[in-house]
Amino acid sequence: MALTEDPYTLISKWLHAKEFLVVGKGIARADALDKALGTAKFVEDYFQEGMLFVKQVLSTEPHAKILRVRDEEALKVPKVVKVFTARDIPGENQVGYALPDQPLIAEGKVRYHGELVALVAAEDIDAALRAAELVKVDYDPLPYVLDPLEALERKDVLVHEEVGSNIAFRTKVRKGNVEEGFSEADVIVENEYRTHHQDHVYLETEGALAIPGLDGRLTVVTAAQYPHLAQSIIARVLGVPASSIKVVVPFMGGGFGGKDDEGPLTAAKAALVAHLTGRPAFILYTREESLRMHPKREATIIKYKSGATKDGKLTAIDVKIIHDTGAYANRGPFILWRATVHASGPYEVPHARVEGYCVYTNKVYQGSFRGFGNPSVQFAAEMQMNELARKLGMDPVEFRLKNMLRPGSRTITNQLLEESVGIAEAVEKLAEKVNWAKRRAECESFKGRYRRGIGIGVAWHGISTSRGVPDWSNAYVKIDKDGSVSMFTGIVEMGQGSPNSSHRQIVAEILGAPLEKVKVVFGTSDAPDAGATHASRGTSIGAIGVLVAAARVRERLNKLAAELLGCKPEDVEIKNGVVRAKGTGKELSWDELIKQAYARGVDLSATGYFFLPKGKFNDELGQGQAYPAFSYVAMIAEVEVDTWTGKVRVLRIWPALAAGRIINPQQVEGQIEGAAVQGMGYVLMEQFVFDNKGRILNADLTDYVVPTTLDIPEIEKPVYVEDLFKYGPFGAKGVGEMALIPAPAAIAGAVSHALGKPITKLPLTPEAVYFELRKGGST
Amino acid sequence: MALTEDPYTLISKWLHAKEFLVVGKGIARADALDKALGTAKFVEDYFQEGMLFVKQVLSTEPHAKILRVRDEEALKVPKVVKVFTARDIPGENQVGYALPDQPLIAEGKVRYHGELVALVAAEDIDAALRAAELVKVDYDPLPYVLDPLEALERKDVLVHEEVGSNIAFRTKVRKGNVEEGFSEADVIVENEYRTHHQDHVYLETEGALAIPGLDGRLTVVTAAQYPHLAQSIIARVLGVPASSIKVVVPFMGGGFGGKDDEGPLTAAKAALVAHLTGRPAFILYTREESLRMHPKREATIIKYKSGATKDGKLTAIDVKIIHDTGAYANRGPFILWRATVHASGPYEVPHARVEGYCVYTNKVYQGSFRGFGNPSVQFAAEMQMNELARKLGMDPVEFRLKNMLRPGSRTITNQLLEESVGIAEAVEKLAEKVNWAKRRAECESFKGRYRRGIGIGVAWHGISTSRGVPDWSNAYVKIDKDGSVSMFTGIVEMGQGSPNSSHRQIVAEILGAPLEKVKVVFGTSDAPDAGATHASRGTSIGAIGVLVAAARVRERLNKLAAELLGCKPEDVEIKNGVVRAKGTGKELSWDELIKQAYARGVDLSATGYFFLPKGKFNDELGQGQAYPAFSYVAMIAEVEVDTWTGKVRVLRIWPALAAGRIINPQQVEGQIEGAAVQGMGYVLMEQFVFDNKGRILNADLTDYVVPTTLDIPEIEKPVYVEDLFKYGPFGAKGVGEMALIPAPAAIAGAVSHALGKPITKLPLTPEAVYFELRKGGST
Repeated sequence: MALTEDPYTLISKWLHAKEFLVVGKGIARADALDKALGTAKFVEDYFQEGMLFVKQVLSTEPHAKILRVRDEEALKVPKVVKVFTARDIPGENQVGYALPDQPLIAEGKVRYHGELVALVAAEDIDAALRAAELVKVDYDPLPYVLDPLEALERKDVLVHEEVGSNIAFRTKVRKGNVEEGFSEADVIVENEYRTHHQDHVYLETEGALAIPGLDGRLTVVTAAQYPHLAQSIIARVLGVPASSIKVVVPFMGGGFGGKDDEGPLTAAKAALVAHLTGRPAFILYTREESLRMHPKREATIIKYKSGATKDGKLTAIDVKIIHDTGAYANRGPFILWRATVHASGPYEVPHARVEGYCVYTNKVYQGSFRGFGNPSVQFAAEMQMNELARKLGMDPVEFRLKNMLRPGSRTITNQLLEESVGIAEAVEKLAEKVNWAKRRAECESFKGRYRRGIGIGVAWHGISTSRGVPDWSNAYVKIDKDGSVSMFTGIVEMGQGSPNSSHRQIVAEILGAPLEKVKVVFGTSDAPDAGATHASRGTSIGAIGVLVAAARVRERLNKLAAELLGCKPEDVEIKNGVVRAKGTGKELSWDELIKQAYARGVDLSATGYFFLPKGKFNDELGQGQAYPAFSYVAMIAEVEVDTWTGKVRVLRIWPALAAGRIINPQQVEGQIEGAAVQGMGYVLMEQFVFDNKGRILNADLTDYVVPTTLDIPEIEKPVYVEDLFKYGPFGAKGVGEMALIPAPAAIAGAVSHALGKPITKLPLTPEAVYFELRKGGST
Repeated sequence: MALTEDPYTLISKWLHAKEFLVVGKGIARADALDKALGTAKFVEDYFQEGMLFVKQVLSTEPHAKILRVRDEEALKVPKVVKVFTARDIPGENQVGYALPDQPLIAEGKVRYHGELVALVAAEDIDAALRAAELVKVDYDPLPYVLDPLEALERKDVLVHEEVGSNIAFRTKVRKGNVEEGFSEADVIVENEYRTHHQDHVYLETEGALAIPGLDGRLTVVTAAQYPHLAQSIIARVLGVPASSIKVVVPFMGGGFGGKDDEGPLTAAKAALVAHLTGRPAFILYTREESLRMHPKREATIIKYKSGATKDGKLTAIDVKIIHDTGAYANRGPFILWRATVHASGPYEVPHARVEGYCVYTNKVYQGSFRGFGNPSVQFAAEMQMNELARKLGMDPVEFRLKNMLRPGSRTITNQLLEESVGIAEAVEKLAEKVNWAKRRAECESFKGRYRRGIGIGVAWHGISTSRGVPDWSNAYVKIDKDGSVSMFTGIVEMGQGSPNSSHRQIVAEILGAPLEKVKVVFGTSDAPDAGATHASRGTSIGAIGVLVAAARVRERLNKLAAELLGCKPEDVEIKNGVVRAKGTGKELSWDELIKQAYARGVDLSATGYFFLPKGKFNDELGQGQAYPAFSYVAMIAEVEVDTWTGKVRVLRIWPALAAGRIINPQQVEGQIEGAAVQGMGYVLMEQFVFDNKGRILNADLTDYVVPTTLDIPEIEKPVYVEDLFKYGPFGAKGVGEMALIPAPAAIAGAVSHALGKPITKLPLTPEAVYFELRKGGST
């Protein structure tokens, strides 16, 4: 077997491995002890001598011209160094993601209540705080618009004049002939769904520390989900080459997408102050700032019409999705893309029409959040499925299974799914495990104050970035003289464990190196670009580079070991620190192998670039290859509703996953639990209240309510169907977001079952349930 | 032309480049501004909040058993945290380099006055200092030996009992039949030479700051010449995998070899305290500690016998070299190897016998220092050449040229030099430039108080590490989305400029990227191991990895550009940010090329491993391939001697270099000037005074005198002969040490010329010259 460096060959070789040393095992993460002891370092643990504290001055208007920023009083505060506005930015004041519509610091006008207008730098935090309050901004208020439906109509009030309307972006999906599809339907269900903003509420708010000059570069330590993106945004804002900026992402107290969007901006704020003053600069958002400023899960209006034949086959869907994108497009177009492509749910529909709109309003803007446009649309799709099943008199699980995507199915973008579609099997196993029909009947037997219901949510989620947008992976590996392995990646450690569990397992599996000798250095822009830690790609696409880099070195080690042991390279086995020639009894130690490699000139360094092949998507036709593969997830939830108070308690959750190889079941369970609970918070508790100026009234954790440990239901062991993905590491697809996506459908479906009423609007707070119960006069 | 990743092909391709964009140009170093402004960061600029200060307790005995270390009083000092001794070391207390004979902290006994016995950690520097004074060590004194000749004879006083003698190491070189050679000689010269210790006196003393936990690793910021060596020594001392240690070498205020040896030990001391306390720990040697503790240039005794025929051809040499290695072998065996192999000077000698001895004594030990064993032996060899020429009545330059190594020559280890031997041409050009004969005659016309003399030193210096010891290079490169390039290397920036000038030029040359977009990140153990920054290899072997990594990416860019421009890859030209298809007028920008590479999946990351091919050396026969190539250097010095005071003033220095490609002449001139002046200090001023316990009496810069700017002579523009080395980057051999090596010979030769007397002993302090002048009764 010839030595290969080709990533396809290497990925495929390891995809079909039969036995595993560490992959598939629930191995404790490398950072477990540090996290438990409190010695793991977060941004705040990087404090520098002589650093400046940075505070933000935020807009108090939803839409206004900035006439003047007056800093005279602020500068009188002792230890205040300077107040910075847009005009101090040496590079481009442009941080828009999908569209170039967004300044780092508001310039000319503000577009939402909470937008950044100025930065204050001072030698201590109290001085910075006092000075920030003393900065006075003179505004000339402009008319504003807060409701997306109103914004769609208005031409006189434009959030971005240059666009000519408030439509930031529109997109579509088309398949077949929808009118024909509905004409074939025996039942039609049509509803308007509404979902709401959600905040990430990470334990650690946004922070960054910029240190000038360490190695002739500006080092920025920050909580961002993509160090290379932060690096390029900082470079753009400062007007310097990206190679003069180093971004380090230490341990992070949660990301969930929010730090994908806000992280680079936070970093750029600290970097700007450090660059302009030549001193280390530190910024840390208060919880109020975090809640007011950073992008939220999209609020949506989804008009959904579905048809099915009386034997339970879907014929058509017609969906209109409106996203309230807020003041800036940010990732809105990508979120909308994802929502439209997934609008059908994981079902085969012969005829589909999906229209999507991102609409500007003068509110905090939408952004990345676990699920990325999908939880809201899967909620709508699944509520439709429930309603169709009810009308057809079918069991909702049976009805779903009749329509479910399987190998050979075509999606609503007409993408052919050749393989890696394990959802039908997963749902069957899950229903069996739950004893669905029996449990459903039991729930219906609760008749008093406390009602019970059971619901199912099934969902799919495309792997990698949207449509034709390129996606790639990379990593860099080296083996030191003592046989210890260092793998470097830009994938971050935000609590999910990709670098510290699954990456480490992949490296140890492929090299055969003892696990305790493997260190994965994460979150550094000095690693080759592996893409962001988002879209559930950390252990999927994000880890392919890790696999390829390690596999390249393994090929060379096999060749050397074969020479040393007198066998063929394919007969070399390396495990637990021992290198063996299969069937010969000859062996040497891992440490000796590495020593020999150093002495004989074997290259023990490699990068692992892989460019993910993707099909084409035609935006004009609304058709094509949307994603190289999909992860699938199902969830059954059982709830209890207190009909006196409207309070919903989730009793139990049963998850199922068809997400390819499960590299570390312990980590996957952690992700499932976290996502399910975050989804539960979204459905039952979390809600922003805006006043009539678009100001968030509950920007604190007293009034913005999230689940606590006491709210966590019993979460059963997941059902896994390992439907391998040919470009995933060992076939892994992606897990991080999955269990959040069907949670609204499962929980709302269970509430709907308990109440005996359809649900079309989230969240299901006690008030909402209370009034819903009383709307029709029942109870 | 096929895409190649093969390092040999790539090195050879660029070796024969005809035109250059930036190579060969005197481009200012990337750190010039930061150095001038004082914003460049050294170890001390990395101060951490809450760090501990570490002070050293040093032995006050030359040789003694350690009975007890008493820390009771020390621990009473407020803010003192702990006192650490050998028994606190969790891993191996073994830091020997060539031999495993050296503890990090003395264990059981001390072997020299100044050896480390304990470390004190305290929360402020004053507390640490006071406590270090209060640590009491109970010693049981042992007999000791200070003189290497005495040590050779003594069996009763052993520095290392387990060795059985005080000979740490011996080595030899053999060629032909020396007795036969001398029998063919018409003149024979025999002398004993003595040279002395020299200190590096870097502006920045040794320091390290260890910070636990930053990314789950222990980060050690230190002034060391080889981050990967520091990493592995720290790992060994702590008993942890190397991958759990990150070493960062920031800007360094001089190294000269001293921080190759002491740097990793300094790092290990800080690392030990940080590891054991969980807190950042900082150590910085005082000048006194630095002068007392760290390894010195070897003191030598060289017995040298040479023969030549009356027509001026060398027939034989017989050389015995004794190095006073001090208390530990350290790099002594390698230094001795280098000295023995180079003992002939750059001349062809048919018969040679060289014996070398490293002898243990109870003094500070010898170590790496610019020239590495070569300045002393080249001094002896060249004094012999002068004496032979005098006896033969020949001009010393003429005599040298008759014997000089040329392509096709064989060295005293019988190594055939096929190519890259430009020294004869260099010496001819130099003599012509200086107008040697005329100037020599003019010097002789000075007869009064102030005499003048002119001397020449010619030297050679093997490229890479000694004999068969493996040598390799590596680097890692990536190009960011904005077209800026980051190159990562373990080669350090200690003032010499390799990373910030020549590496950067190599990258810009090969990629065609705009120079301002190229950043070389240096001195990090996160880069793949490129070997140490020593042996003049920073811009030679150390930079090959940089070349290979960049050239791999360039191949891929050429292929892409060829596709985009519709030409052959070999017709792609990239310069000044423009990519052209030769002869077609078609072009695109560098930035666009990189943008396309990202969109189309071209890998813009690479490592650049290269394993240097080396011949075999037979230690038993004392013959073989000693080095893959040699750098050559010549120097002519003119001096003025004040016969009343003995003071020597160097008036002018003319250097010549046959060191392959000159990548940055500005940097090379800097290296030549620095080395020449450091060599001058060695010859004329620098000298340690030991008392009868082996204690250094002048461990301060008042009494250990080094040249100041006022002492610097006029140094003429160098003569370059670019005798390309096939494995060097663009053919570069190595420069850093070169001008120091012939300086003792040139300057002492000039003094000898002025005095009309042979010189056999260094240094030539005013006292030494004064008494030398009066020894024979003259003047």
